[in-house]
Amino acid sequence: MRIVSGMRPTGKLHIGHYFGAIKNWINLQQGNETLFFVADWHALTTSYKNISDIRENTIQMLIDWIAMGLDPAKSIFFVQSHVKYHAELSLILGMITPKSWLELNPTYKDTKYNLLKIAHLEKEYKDTLKPLIDNISNITPHKIEDIEAFKKILAEDITDTFIKLLIEGIIDKGRLIELNISKRDFYETDTFGFFGYPVLMASDILMYNADGVPVGEDQLSHVEIAREIARRFNYLYKPFFKEPKAILTETPRLLGTDNRKMSKSYNNAIMIDETEEETSSKVLKMFTDPQKLRKNDPGRPEICNVFNYHKIFSQNEYLNIEDGCKSGKLGCVECKKILAKNLNMFLAPMREKRLSISKELIENLLQEGDRKANEIASENMKQINEILGL
Amino acid sequence: MRIVSGMRPTGKLHIGHYFGAIKNWINLQQGNETLFFVADWHALTTSYKNISDIRENTIQMLIDWIAMGLDPAKSIFFVQSHVKYHAELSLILGMITPKSWLELNPTYKDTKYNLLKIAHLEKEYKDTLKPLIDNISNITPHKIEDIEAFKKILAEDITDTFIKLLIEGIIDKGRLIELNISKRDFYETDTFGFFGYPVLMASDILMYNADGVPVGEDQLSHVEIAREIARRFNYLYKPFFKEPKAILTETPRLLGTDNRKMSKSYNNAIMIDETEEETSSKVLKMFTDPQKLRKNDPGRPEICNVFNYHKIFSQNEYLNIEDGCKSGKLGCVECKKILAKNLNMFLAPMREKRLSISKELIENLLQEGDRKANEIASENMKQINEILGL
Repeated sequence: MRIVSGMRPTGKLHIGHYFGAIKNWINLQQGNETLFFVADWHALTTSYKNISDIRENTIQMLIDWIAMGLDPAKSIFFVQSHVKYHAELSLILGMITPKSWLELNPTYKDTKYNLLKIAHLEKEYKDTLKPLIDNISNITPHKIEDIEAFKKILAEDITDTFIKLLIEGIIDKGRLIELNISKRDFYETDTFGFFGYPVLMASDILMYNADGVPVGEDQLSHVEIAREIARRFNYLYKPFFKEPKAILTETPRLLGTDNRKMSKSYNNAIMIDETEEETSSKVLKMFTDPQKLRKNDPGRPEICNVFNYHKIFSQNEYLNIEDGCKSGKLGCVECKKILAKNLNMFLAPMREKRLSISKELIENLLQEGDRKANEIASENMKQINEILGL
Repeated sequence: MRIVSGMRPTGKLHIGHYFGAIKNWINLQQGNETLFFVADWHALTTSYKNISDIRENTIQMLIDWIAMGLDPAKSIFFVQSHVKYHAELSLILGMITPKSWLELNPTYKDTKYNLLKIAHLEKEYKDTLKPLIDNISNITPHKIEDIEAFKKILAEDITDTFIKLLIEGIIDKGRLIELNISKRDFYETDTFGFFGYPVLMASDILMYNADGVPVGEDQLSHVEIAREIARRFNYLYKPFFKEPKAILTETPRLLGTDNRKMSKSYNNAIMIDETEEETSSKVLKMFTDPQKLRKNDPGRPEICNVFNYHKIFSQNEYLNIEDGCKSGKLGCVECKKILAKNLNMFLAPMREKRLSISKELIENLLQEGDRKANEIASENMKQINEILGL
């Protein structure tokens, strides 16, 4: 099978990246043809105002890919923006992609709404507008064939309109200030590129006629759009694209050391490239069961983030740790020290390997990878253009 | 000045193309650096289902460009899809283009609505919904700061929603059948690519850092979007793009021989590549003043399409013709014969030149032009990528 996946150039990686994606990629290297790319154009979809360091972040991320165990002898690593054909294919696939497919994309809707922090504002409007919508539906000029669907869509659209008008300052600027939303925030993220990133993602996948795409659950809808686009192209012109399959793997849910989502920017992430002392210090600050105040208090491992880590990093001893915690024989400080030791043991080979990887090696690998990716893409693009008569 | 303009690969051209665009291009060749391209990717924005003959249409159109007087020694002719950098730049510019700029694009709105033939349906809904909108605006949950703007936008959005729901069959399928609109028509044109074509057009222009863009009035808004995008890029990253100016020229309004818009598909167009007999036959079928039934009846040249043609093609005699028509000395048949003669005289050199232009010549010119355009585009793209750090 040919497998394609990518990651935005986020710089140095943490254990969340390992368990969320890279571990899966490493497994897929066995017996498959694998291409992994740095999605630098995708980074522009949401961060177009903050573009510094894309190049340096690319290098640092690649060093971690290899330190974690990805093997450049088995996979092709390349940079998306160095294979111009992705842009060309994206342009072409955009021509046959109905806007409605993109409007229904849950990630688009979510991000847009999260950004606006308006979930509760939406509810507020919906409740107030409900009687009005009932009223409209009673006196609409034409017959309504599906009254429930009618009310549902109308409620959503009218609420969207109200929110839009709120943002434009036509209704109640005070409410916006209260919610700390700026008109700017809204318009600056709602770009054509952000709206269309599933089309770009489809072109990343279809460019190589991939059989499989390892993704997280939040990306499933994008693979589905890629499949739809492939089907549509094949139907309109000529069967050419395979319909790529999403490869979804169970990944352990690994929160940051402060129980929030693990993220470098929260300083709650265990980085590959940090010292054993830094890791230990982060582990020792982790939250545990708030009811276990003294060593002898019985703890509840099932709600403890530290124990969740033990299940991953202390496979030989986590049953003993569970017993110790519950029975009050093991205190939290001791428990965290064991975790810190195991975590550092787990990371030691990656850290050691990291030291041996030079920037020059990465530059050379990418140059080679870009060349190979361009070779495949160019051949496919040639055939696509022939099909279209361009 | 550097001048850039393009035309979709429509195949053989007619006199409407000459007076609407090519004549202007020919004038601009003097003293300027001119690049003219075949907008084959743009053809996909509306005709992605009908893609046959793009290549042959390109060749035939280029033959007419030269037959009409464009000089390959003075201008660079190239094919858009042969300069991949347009796609790359378009992808990048899309990232910084707010969706709202595209939603406001009048051509987008017009085409979408024309296609749906729903202008009167829109009015129908607006009138019926007006009292409801007044009602909503009275009991909206938040203070309204600009009541007139509020009602206007709300009326438009709610009408759009109703039309959408009509198309989706949730209200009144019967009305759709009556109007002869299919759900398919709607979704198939409302694509991501069609929505974003002003971004592609901006990249066509900005790719070459053009100073001027000769356009018709209906394209003014696109040049404006290109200017906005250039400003935004320069502001966000680093001043790089010039703000291109629209070069608007007065063109005589030339209707088809049946008084409709001139178009090959209506068979009402005077083609460069047709015989003198074909032209004469089309002219002799032209409509004249319906009140002038007999030669001696006084005519009204100011409402006569034939006279409109005379003003362009019979410059030395059109005052006499006007007199003859008004006084009843000149009959319509005679008048049309004069026009046919003059039209054929005007077209004779183009027709003769057309015969001397081989497909091979065009292929060679385009190859050379593609090379030159790629040279300029590649250098600019390199600098743009450096600015972005890609």
